[in-house]
Amino acid sequence: MRLDQATPEQLREWQTALNEQYKSLQQAGLNLDLTRGKPSAEQLDLSNALDGILNGTYTDDSGTDLRNYGGLDGIPEAKQLFAQIIDVKPEEVMIGGNGSLTLMYFAVQTALQHGVADADSAWIKESAGASIKFLAPVPGYDRHFALCEHLGIELIPVTMNADGPDMDQVEQLVKADSSIKGIWCVPRFSNPTGTVYSEQVVQRIAKLGTIAGANFRVFWDNAYAVHTLQENATALPNLMDYCRAAGTEDSVYLFGSTSKITFAGAGVAFMASSPANLNVLKKHLSFNTIGPDKVNQLRHVKFLKDMGTLNQHMAKHAAIMQPRFNAVLTSLRTELGDSGMGSWTEPEGGYFVSFDSRPGLAREIVKMAAGAGVKLTPAGATFPYGNDPQDSNIRLAPTYPTVAEIEKAMAVFVLCVKLASINQALAA
Amino acid sequence: MRLDQATPEQLREWQTALNEQYKSLQQAGLNLDLTRGKPSAEQLDLSNALDGILNGTYTDDSGTDLRNYGGLDGIPEAKQLFAQIIDVKPEEVMIGGNGSLTLMYFAVQTALQHGVADADSAWIKESAGASIKFLAPVPGYDRHFALCEHLGIELIPVTMNADGPDMDQVEQLVKADSSIKGIWCVPRFSNPTGTVYSEQVVQRIAKLGTIAGANFRVFWDNAYAVHTLQENATALPNLMDYCRAAGTEDSVYLFGSTSKITFAGAGVAFMASSPANLNVLKKHLSFNTIGPDKVNQLRHVKFLKDMGTLNQHMAKHAAIMQPRFNAVLTSLRTELGDSGMGSWTEPEGGYFVSFDSRPGLAREIVKMAAGAGVKLTPAGATFPYGNDPQDSNIRLAPTYPTVAEIEKAMAVFVLCVKLASINQALAA
Repeated sequence: MRLDQATPEQLREWQTALNEQYKSLQQAGLNLDLTRGKPSAEQLDLSNALDGILNGTYTDDSGTDLRNYGGLDGIPEAKQLFAQIIDVKPEEVMIGGNGSLTLMYFAVQTALQHGVADADSAWIKESAGASIKFLAPVPGYDRHFALCEHLGIELIPVTMNADGPDMDQVEQLVKADSSIKGIWCVPRFSNPTGTVYSEQVVQRIAKLGTIAGANFRVFWDNAYAVHTLQENATALPNLMDYCRAAGTEDSVYLFGSTSKITFAGAGVAFMASSPANLNVLKKHLSFNTIGPDKVNQLRHVKFLKDMGTLNQHMAKHAAIMQPRFNAVLTSLRTELGDSGMGSWTEPEGGYFVSFDSRPGLAREIVKMAAGAGVKLTPAGATFPYGNDPQDSNIRLAPTYPTVAEIEKAMAVFVLCVKLASINQALAA
Repeated sequence: MRLDQATPEQLREWQTALNEQYKSLQQAGLNLDLTRGKPSAEQLDLSNALDGILNGTYTDDSGTDLRNYGGLDGIPEAKQLFAQIIDVKPEEVMIGGNGSLTLMYFAVQTALQHGVADADSAWIKESAGASIKFLAPVPGYDRHFALCEHLGIELIPVTMNADGPDMDQVEQLVKADSSIKGIWCVPRFSNPTGTVYSEQVVQRIAKLGTIAGANFRVFWDNAYAVHTLQENATALPNLMDYCRAAGTEDSVYLFGSTSKITFAGAGVAFMASSPANLNVLKKHLSFNTIGPDKVNQLRHVKFLKDMGTLNQHMAKHAAIMQPRFNAVLTSLRTELGDSGMGSWTEPEGGYFVSFDSRPGLAREIVKMAAGAGVKLTPAGATFPYGNDPQDSNIRLAPTYPTVAEIEKAMAVFVLCVKLASINQALAA
């Protein structure tokens, strides 16, 4: 039944029935969680061979002893392999520690305090006390927003379309305001919408460096670069190639990691940019680190080997994740399809399903679900300052629970969506 | 022969003979290096069992899956073990990545930008544009100095005595100038002098928080806490106990790592402070990391087990290092003992021998040694801004080369010391 085709009487009947169901679910004492973008234990098991894979050999191909100090930007074999994940050249890569968030924080903070090039290019110098701003396609990733807020950078939301950020908006904004110094992008299987940026969007992003103010940088967090849920998932156009064509290689910082390839907490993160940019970053990096853990890099190279092996490994992840995503999507399609009560993404990869309720209901739905024992990502979390102006976006994270848990949680979720929608319709 | 008892004729004869020796050494084409405070491959081999030690078990005692996300400050077992290395309680510890330098940088930067407690305690707020200053006992560790310089913090050298920093100087300085916000300490087997801070010095350092300006912190880099070269090496008094007695637990940040216990580039770093301080640091840390590599923590806990096992392991390091230190000291004693040409430390632990030439000769000696194929740490490196006002301190790092290499390098070194000293005496 479509919400907008129901009579008030039908709605009231429905409301009564749903309220009954909600009460009985409340009494079921559920304790379920759809908040966490974490791999399941089954996925982590796929990489258990990492520990012990070195078999006593701690040297790279050139014979360097990886146990000792030295090497600020990673071992050649890791650069070679990880460059392919994010579609850049090995000489454009530097390897970090166990999380790309640390590299992103470092890149933003360095640009802010010390400059993207020399000291005069420090964003704080240019701003003379005024706000530095970043564009945030929304809905987006809360840790990107929190990082900026922590460093005093203001976030300007821009619309996320089906093919990536609304580039008309983006271009207009960066042209008009030179204090906009960055944009956050999760270009393939975007968090939370699963969007893959189109050829045209990627091309326009590569050209932002030519129209934005000085020292602007694209923060290209390609966290789900190889994290497909199905064969022949939509590919991401090569940003760096478009930058080369536009002469804007200095305007982009790319990020990736094996966090959701091997171990979420013990993987290897990496970033890429022009060699000129990497030299600047390494100069500053040398003051705060003795260099990343090269032994863990070697473990990863030995384990993931090459892109063929890596893609086979990712197919095993997909086989574990598919039934979980299917459980979410089946529930949404069956229970809310053509209901007029919400829309959702059906991603070809990544870690999330993004749901949009009717405006003004997300907080209410999350609260109702919590009341019946189902924890959802807080409404608003996908927007800067926790402020979803429509109060409609809810991020569903189905990787960590079991399929049975997801089915139970989704039964609660769709019920809450229905009940909240009907309550709202009747109150109107 | 003592330099000051030789006649000009004797000196000239000597000079001629040494010049001959120097020339023949130049022709020997040596390529030796005494610059690097790095463990040797033999030392690193002691920890080869780390990779593979988990045997497929990636959970801690409480059953937490250490492969996944979660845990900002380390696993309980690591806190328990590493607390003992730096003499604090487990609840005073947080675990970092593979290097303590990163934790130090983070602690200084957080204090500077975000505050040691609330936002009002940020050093930059208090300074209102004026310089923030740190005290640097000299000679000291160049990376401490470089870190401060990178963050715009001014360094004030203070004298290092045989029992630690000159506390009269230190107390006078911090009382007189509230913009002094920190002091660098390497309290046991100090880099490069090998000094172990005495009971009285430690006690006075614990009380600095009561006489310094607001938001002052001691940076206690206990890098060589368990790195003894002999049994019954001088112990370090417990700083935190003295802080508890003085009510100054908030005034100290302690640091340590397994970099020179297991793998220099793939160990585990940690820091300690009052739980109140740790809470502040963790709040800020959460914006730049998903948490440290817990799997590597578990490897270290399984490998090092307890302080008994750890100390046995350190004794194996000592057995490898002793002949190397002996090679340095034997050469110095035999060739320069009672010569009046220099003095040196005879450390009971740590990684260095600190040599002081006659004033004005360190740069010349380092240059001469380089001319004969022996690389020494640049003169001045042990002072802020590379400025050794006496131009006399040279850091010798004997852990990385073989004993035979050290013997050859030291033959060059003592020759250069003699020649430079005689040249200076004759020019006077």
